[in-house]
Amino acid sequence: MPLAAVIPKPNANVEVREFPAPELEQDSAILAVELSEVCGTDVYLQRGLLDGVPYPLIPGHVSVGHLSKIRGRMNDVEGQPFREGDRVTFLDVHRTCNACWSCLVAKATTCCPQRKVYGITYGANDVLAGGWAEEVYLKPGTRCIHMNAAPERFMAGGCALPTALHAVERADISIGDTVLVLGSGPVGLNAIVLAVMRGALRVLCIGAPRQRLDAALEMGASRVLNFEEHNEVERHEWLMTDGRLPDVTIEATGHPDAVVQAMRFTRDAGRVVIVGQYTDHGPVSDRAAFNPHLDLNKKHLDVRGCWGSDFSHFYRAAQLVSDPSRSAPWAKLQPRLSRFGLAQANEALSAVASGEVLKALIDPRV
Amino acid sequence: MPLAAVIPKPNANVEVREFPAPELEQDSAILAVELSEVCGTDVYLQRGLLDGVPYPLIPGHVSVGHLSKIRGRMNDVEGQPFREGDRVTFLDVHRTCNACWSCLVAKATTCCPQRKVYGITYGANDVLAGGWAEEVYLKPGTRCIHMNAAPERFMAGGCALPTALHAVERADISIGDTVLVLGSGPVGLNAIVLAVMRGALRVLCIGAPRQRLDAALEMGASRVLNFEEHNEVERHEWLMTDGRLPDVTIEATGHPDAVVQAMRFTRDAGRVVIVGQYTDHGPVSDRAAFNPHLDLNKKHLDVRGCWGSDFSHFYRAAQLVSDPSRSAPWAKLQPRLSRFGLAQANEALSAVASGEVLKALIDPRV
Amino acid sequence: MPLAAVIPKPNANVEVREFPAPELEQDSAILAVELSEVCGTDVYLQRGLLDGVPYPLIPGHVSVGHLSKIRGRMNDVEGQPFREGDRVTFLDVHRTCNACWSCLVAKATTCCPQRKVYGITYGANDVLAGGWAEEVYLKPGTRCIHMNAAPERFMAGGCALPTALHAVERADISIGDTVLVLGSGPVGLNAIVLAVMRGALRVLCIGAPRQRLDAALEMGASRVLNFEEHNEVERHEWLMTDGRLPDVTIEATGHPDAVVQAMRFTRDAGRVVIVGQYTDHGPVSDRAAFNPHLDLNKKHLDVRGCWGSDFSHFYRAAQLVSDPSRSAPWAKLQPRLSRFGLAQANEALSAVASGEVLKALIDPRV
Amino acid sequence: MPLAAVIPKPNANVEVREFPAPELEQDSAILAVELSEVCGTDVYLQRGLLDGVPYPLIPGHVSVGHLSKIRGRMNDVEGQPFREGDRVTFLDVHRTCNACWSCLVAKATTCCPQRKVYGITYGANDVLAGGWAEEVYLKPGTRCIHMNAAPERFMAGGCALPTALHAVERADISIGDTVLVLGSGPVGLNAIVLAVMRGALRVLCIGAPRQRLDAALEMGASRVLNFEEHNEVERHEWLMTDGRLPDVTIEATGHPDAVVQAMRFTRDAGRVVIVGQYTDHGPVSDRAAFNPHLDLNKKHLDVRGCWGSDFSHFYRAAQLVSDPSRSAPWAKLQPRLSRFGLAQANEALSAVASGEVLKALIDPRV
Repeated sequence: MPLAAVIPKPNANVEVREFPAPELEQDSAILAVELSEVCGTDVYLQRGLLDGVPYPLIPGHVSVGHLSKIRGRMNDVEGQPFREGDRVTFLDVHRTCNACWSCLVAKATTCCPQRKVYGITYGANDVLAGGWAEEVYLKPGTRCIHMNAAPERFMAGGCALPTALHAVERADISIGDTVLVLGSGPVGLNAIVLAVMRGALRVLCIGAPRQRLDAALEMGASRVLNFEEHNEVERHEWLMTDGRLPDVTIEATGHPDAVVQAMRFTRDAGRVVIVGQYTDHGPVSDRAAFNPHLDLNKKHLDVRGCWGSDFSHFYRAAQLVSDPSRSAPWAKLQPRLSRFGLAQANEALSAVASGEVLKALIDPRV
Repeated sequence: MPLAAVIPKPNANVEVREFPAPELEQDSAILAVELSEVCGTDVYLQRGLLDGVPYPLIPGHVSVGHLSKIRGRMNDVEGQPFREGDRVTFLDVHRTCNACWSCLVAKATTCCPQRKVYGITYGANDVLAGGWAEEVYLKPGTRCIHMNAAPERFMAGGCALPTALHAVERADISIGDTVLVLGSGPVGLNAIVLAVMRGALRVLCIGAPRQRLDAALEMGASRVLNFEEHNEVERHEWLMTDGRLPDVTIEATGHPDAVVQAMRFTRDAGRVVIVGQYTDHGPVSDRAAFNPHLDLNKKHLDVRGCWGSDFSHFYRAAQLVSDPSRSAPWAKLQPRLSRFGLAQANEALSAVASGEVLKALIDPRV
Repeated sequence: MPLAAVIPKPNANVEVREFPAPELEQDSAILAVELSEVCGTDVYLQRGLLDGVPYPLIPGHVSVGHLSKIRGRMNDVEGQPFREGDRVTFLDVHRTCNACWSCLVAKATTCCPQRKVYGITYGANDVLAGGWAEEVYLKPGTRCIHMNAAPERFMAGGCALPTALHAVERADISIGDTVLVLGSGPVGLNAIVLAVMRGALRVLCIGAPRQRLDAALEMGASRVLNFEEHNEVERHEWLMTDGRLPDVTIEATGHPDAVVQAMRFTRDAGRVVIVGQYTDHGPVSDRAAFNPHLDLNKKHLDVRGCWGSDFSHFYRAAQLVSDPSRSAPWAKLQPRLSRFGLAQANEALSAVASGEVLKALIDPRV
Repeated sequence: MPLAAVIPKPNANVEVREFPAPELEQDSAILAVELSEVCGTDVYLQRGLLDGVPYPLIPGHVSVGHLSKIRGRMNDVEGQPFREGDRVTFLDVHRTCNACWSCLVAKATTCCPQRKVYGITYGANDVLAGGWAEEVYLKPGTRCIHMNAAPERFMAGGCALPTALHAVERADISIGDTVLVLGSGPVGLNAIVLAVMRGALRVLCIGAPRQRLDAALEMGASRVLNFEEHNEVERHEWLMTDGRLPDVTIEATGHPDAVVQAMRFTRDAGRVVIVGQYTDHGPVSDRAAFNPHLDLNKKHLDVRGCWGSDFSHFYRAAQLVSDPSRSAPWAKLQPRLSRFGLAQANEALSAVASGEVLKALIDPRV
């Protein structure tokens, strides 16, 4: 009878509950969770800010653990079967249909109407489907990946890593570019690492608070600015230190106005990737008033929305953190992670919401 | 002593003035104008709505005529010299430096600080540099193109054609796509022609007034909607007739709010090109309030600002209208053009501003 | 007991055999074939020139007909169920796994090790899986598309149309480009139509025999050359008539040497798509000796292999032929098609092999 | 009266000659050379293997030194004037016209008919135009760049660095890719550095001799193989160690057969960049016989010829070697460079030809 931390309904406290052991369908498995995490989306889930979420909900969409039980066969992408005892992670997007117009013609699986996500759109009444639990039930068709890295190393990237990888892929960085990252939360920090890994000459970060900006520097940022201490004009000046605005800006803040600032902070004919708007925080404020002539048309910017990620991003993310050399940046983040037990999930959520921790992990064995 | 129509200063009436015959530098020429045109930008120039314009100004940036005098040598792109008497048009962008960071590293010549445009950023005190005149002085380095088509055929496209060609290039249309064009002015009409020419299956147009929508249908639009008669909700419903929003939207309206509507009217993971915001009409209104989560991030749209055009667009445009088969759509527009003499330039401007003519030409020989 | 035409083994004559009526799995269907076709691949299948083909084989990978029986549910890409009596076509690629590295990371479903193709890699001992038959068994997961066009209209494109659409997609044609198509078989003819549909200014074709070149002109080619009457030097001269080699070449010949010629016939920095090498005809001959410096590096060409097609190409192809306006070119081809019964399959194969027919259809009701 | 090393005619020994001090045109300058280099192309120039080279020739197309004299004004890309005494390098491509079809429509400046290159297509009878000299005459319009790095650091990259940067740009590497570099000469070594800098997970190198492979490992290659000790089958096996062929191959060998091997060594749907064929070494040999079906079409490869480089590559290269952090790999190469005086140019050429030195520099002050 596995335990799991549950959000019973929007704005209610998380509770630890006991669940019946799942019965395995053909070609399914049980993951004995070693680590899961608390991401910004989980904070919004607890506040009821996402549409289409079936409460009660067991959060935790990116997790790592051991396959404690397999019924039938689950294969890796090489077509080789997993074995009981293997350490794996799995793509939180469980189901896309590979049969609809979005999957097959638009080739945008993120728009598939059948898309279901562990820990977000699968509720506790569906299956034991979130990582804040001793066990996760991996339904048939779940895409698992062997995890060769230590769980802490992988979780130092966590769900922010494939998200940032998708954003950096869309950012189309050239060797020698100057890249601005707006935001210094997990997605921002991962975007810094990956922008460096793409050959950016300079990676700048505007964020807060101080400890996250310190982490940004450690991740490879050339310079950082605390947005709480500088207004938009000062930020613009700071960016112009090198004589020119950045070639590429990756917005990873969560604040609507940052989207317009991202456009203003980017050089003419540059690229802007919007990845920090996963939750509806309403329209851009009057203060940031979006002017299509000045902010977009005359600058002939490319502005690219970036939603979710697919297996390719997750797979490449897992490769990076499993590689002794490539995983070095995440190794630096590892000691800065904060670990919480299932019973401490509420504390974990508030620590993430306040930004007092860099990243909160859920360890069901604590 | 050639005559030219001049905007003396912002918001003043156009006056016809006599200019001294220009003295030719080495490798320059005189164009005896046959036809020039009045585009939306000229209306804004008369109202003083563009920055960096040196008044008094002779408008008219796209024109066609004969080379009445050549001093030295002017070559076409094949390296062959033009001869006196040749019928040509010329790229309005006279000067980009091919030596700055924008030209050489960013490869965005539209951002070159040396960029100068006939009829817009060259004033009447610089040179005889606008097409609303009996003669235009073609400075050394001006890029001329042989015009094999009749002047009226070419002007049926006019400056809107290379602009729309650039927009359609950025729109990245696939064979079979549904394309929405917002706006039925000259850029919108040309965008319709070119979207069909790229293999779109359906091209929809939302615009006004009725006579322009009729022209849109003639240009190849499958369906048109009068935006004056339908609110945003109704427009959305009309678009959904085929069960799905358009793959691509090209905004060519001139109204800031249309930029946000363009995003809302496009399917998830589609493309939006913003080409209708050449003048600063201020920010998006509260009614259209831009919501980055709903309008951009969650839809993972590509939104592409499109500013100006370069020689490649102008050259390809001239090829299209010079081709007997490809120029068929513009042949249909030809009889709908309205012709004004230099002395009627004020009438021409107000006819364009009100939308009562589809397109106004300036014929200095009238 | 449906009849089907069968290739018993390589180099054996086709025989008509009776097959037991298939038993339907859950979510499968029977297609009552109206028309199938003979393509170049079928000629090679009969000669045993493709690897991995399980004989005996019922050829015919692109077909159209009615769903005479459905067990369970088969959906279209909109998620709507098909009904018995619906006229459909179906993608010949039945199975890709959506679970392997090729499908999920490389996003190259054509490399999926599970890929199975009706009429090519499904043999007669697997299922009733080829279109040269009264009935085809559509296994669960087969992607059907409603066919609104007349079967003859669709088959005027046939399997060559999605193949050419994939090639033209890879060719990255710009408005105003000159496109050369090498080969005037079905793929070449479809490539001509689609290159025009992408906005090419001129489409040139080098092929044979005369009747196919006539068809090429009817499909929109500007000029054609009979390769049997002109050697490589003369072909090069003919191409240079416009002063410059083509921007894009699409090779659709079936002859290895044409690949090197395609490179030589394309302008520096142009694009070459290789789509005519579906069968192993051995290496390039000494006469065409491939020189990487002259033919590739110094020309900085992009040379793009093009193998198979996916659902998106098939879907867009079906849309084109179903559209009253877009299908006009195929309407012109319709009267030139030759129709054969099952018992005449050997005649059909030899008529295709010799090029004496433009296209051979198999009509099992004849 | 500056000294320069001259190739009098093909296959003749290099001679040191005295030249008259050049008279400066308006907006030109003299570079007092600190370092130039010997690249593979120089070996071929001495052997007369390049077309269109005007002998006698002063080789040396990439050099660094001080501006000893400026007449008029020479600007950097920011529009700021250089001053006498500034340390600079300059782009070897002096002239492209920015007025022809290649420059303006195809946007392929490498095909401009006016293109002239210092040390290759400018001969000693034109101007003092090669770097194997005490002075180089920088004609008006020459693109100089401030060199903040030590000359040795910059020359550790040399002309191979922008060439490799162009190749890696065309290679379109994704984060996590496996990249194979064929060849371990200067272009190969730089390609290794840059492939790592783009986020490749593994970079493999097949080359020779041993000392260059050691350098390859130091530059970041994961594994290396000596092609002299392993035949094609063994190389293929070695590549398959990770279970799959590389995603991307960059050919930088100089041997025609390597082009076909590059295709065979790349996974289906991967990319191949051909950058090692700057000189005509004739066609692919019978041993490597190019089979378009197996090597290209069925693999649906992208094969991309890569010729020369433009200012953007050169500028980004200069930025990399000037950056304390990014220049680390070239710092490692620095101690492995061999320095020769003008009078030792023949020894330098033969040391490069035999591969006994990693890289030979020409120091006119020795």
